[in-house]
Amino acid sequence: MTKNFVVGIDLGGTKISGAFTDLEGNVLYKHTIPTNAFEGEKAVLDRIITVIKEVIKESGHSIEDVKAIGVGSPGPLDPKKGEILQTPNLPFENFQLIKPIQEKFDIPTFLDNDANVATIGEHLFGAGIGTKNMIFVTVSTGVGAGAIINGKIFRGNTFNALEVGHASVDKDGPMCKCGNRGCVEVYSSGTAIGRIANEAILEGKETSLTKYKTVTAKEVFIEAKSGDNVANEVLDFSLNYLGICISNLIVTFDPEMIVIGGGVSMAGEIVFNKINEVVKERCFKEMAAGCRIVPAGLGTDAGMIGAAALAITESE
Amino acid sequence: MTKNFVVGIDLGGTKISGAFTDLEGNVLYKHTIPTNAFEGEKAVLDRIITVIKEVIKESGHSIEDVKAIGVGSPGPLDPKKGEILQTPNLPFENFQLIKPIQEKFDIPTFLDNDANVATIGEHLFGAGIGTKNMIFVTVSTGVGAGAIINGKIFRGNTFNALEVGHASVDKDGPMCKCGNRGCVEVYSSGTAIGRIANEAILEGKETSLTKYKTVTAKEVFIEAKSGDNVANEVLDFSLNYLGICISNLIVTFDPEMIVIGGGVSMAGEIVFNKINEVVKERCFKEMAAGCRIVPAGLGTDAGMIGAAALAITESE
Repeated sequence: MTKNFVVGIDLGGTKISGAFTDLEGNVLYKHTIPTNAFEGEKAVLDRIITVIKEVIKESGHSIEDVKAIGVGSPGPLDPKKGEILQTPNLPFENFQLIKPIQEKFDIPTFLDNDANVATIGEHLFGAGIGTKNMIFVTVSTGVGAGAIINGKIFRGNTFNALEVGHASVDKDGPMCKCGNRGCVEVYSSGTAIGRIANEAILEGKETSLTKYKTVTAKEVFIEAKSGDNVANEVLDFSLNYLGICISNLIVTFDPEMIVIGGGVSMAGEIVFNKINEVVKERCFKEMAAGCRIVPAGLGTDAGMIGAAALAITESE
Repeated sequence: MTKNFVVGIDLGGTKISGAFTDLEGNVLYKHTIPTNAFEGEKAVLDRIITVIKEVIKESGHSIEDVKAIGVGSPGPLDPKKGEILQTPNLPFENFQLIKPIQEKFDIPTFLDNDANVATIGEHLFGAGIGTKNMIFVTVSTGVGAGAIINGKIFRGNTFNALEVGHASVDKDGPMCKCGNRGCVEVYSSGTAIGRIANEAILEGKETSLTKYKTVTAKEVFIEAKSGDNVANEVLDFSLNYLGICISNLIVTFDPEMIVIGGGVSMAGEIVFNKINEVVKERCFKEMAAGCRIVPAGLGTDAGMIGAAALAITESE
């Protein structure tokens, strides 16, 4: 009997989202519940299992139709052992979650970190379809990335490859929580954009940002669009570093495509224009010419669809 | 009939070196002549052919024993077309050299850039034997690199991957001849070490370097060892950036090994101590712990042996 469906689970700090999809990445049914991480690993595992049951049941198909299950989670984790080693925002430590799921359903189950899962999703069903060498960069709370090399996800020796958010681009730059200085993440993440804007406000600069009670990257993008000088300066500063990161990725991987996703990328033109400007200024012409820089193709369901894509590629 | 030998050619700016080797990388015979690049492409091609004939003849074997020929050359080049596109230090442009060699000897012939060839050589016969994910970095006139990913050389979309010498580590740093600013190469190459030392001398700093008519990286390493403060400051400054480059490579590729070769690496301890210090300070602990940083294993014949390794891997 051919099994033509998979389940993708996106395990996040606040919610667990599950999707029942076909092998072309079409979502037939999806369901989201709170993570309630404070209840501990066993309770979270039970909640994941509940979501899997729910999406299978409500899809109108049966468990026999499911080829594989994929789970995307914050890392660091060990995809081979199916274990989340630790997570900065979740109280997990050596959380073995793949084996119990696999045993519960008797379906092959796979785990990978959220950046890799999103990379596989973009490669299989999003902006990167058909590429052989592609880099996915996600810019939201942090800056993460994944690489498709010769058509396959590249994980590295300890499964942590593409932590390019923690490549230093200024030796004397601000301290990053990773211990390094001048990481791309301390300049270009959504968190960083908010921090830098708040620093400008505290310096007493005249800006329309003062009208907000709380200023995050979102407000900076809104006010920049309205013509506020300080908001535009903050973005120019932050996105310049993102451009340097992308230029460095091009000279390093010589990819045919860089896909950019995550909350910050949603601001669209202002982000991509700045990246393209910096790449044009800094990067080898031949390599830049060979590399398209494009927005992510999967929308808000990217996490679930990526996890489904992981299930599909790993069970092949 | 089994063909148990290959020929490796190292085409450089000043000389053409050829080696006749067995499939374990043992050099049975080698021969070096001047490149005489000023004579033009046709003359250089003839000189390469002369070296190939010579090493086969003097090896005591015959042309029928040669499985493949490998050529390493400065790039950028197109390994698929067998063409050197252009070279900063040689007067070549779209120099098609593989097809004529292949036709002349009726032996499969392969071309790659010198960094890739050295990477393949270190992987097959040098420090990186048996590794699956390895980065080779060469620090001499410039800073070049190559990557072994899943056991194979990774070339990228336009065959220019791993131009990490031109990844920027300081947005406002000195202009590089590539057009970018703050490239690792403008801080950490042998050329850069010499330049920075000469700047210090011009500033009138008190240093034993003034006793030399010409100061290059070599003299800086000698005087640093003798305890000269300025020479040590120059090296500390330059090698700090090399350490940042290596740390950035580790978070990017999560390799099991980084092999460092080239003239600057020959200075030994002072170079590796500084790199290890910076990596310890900056890099994720898990990834750093998983990655050995070691000196290149092939000596002065690395270019030829690498080209032989290219011939072996490509003809498999």
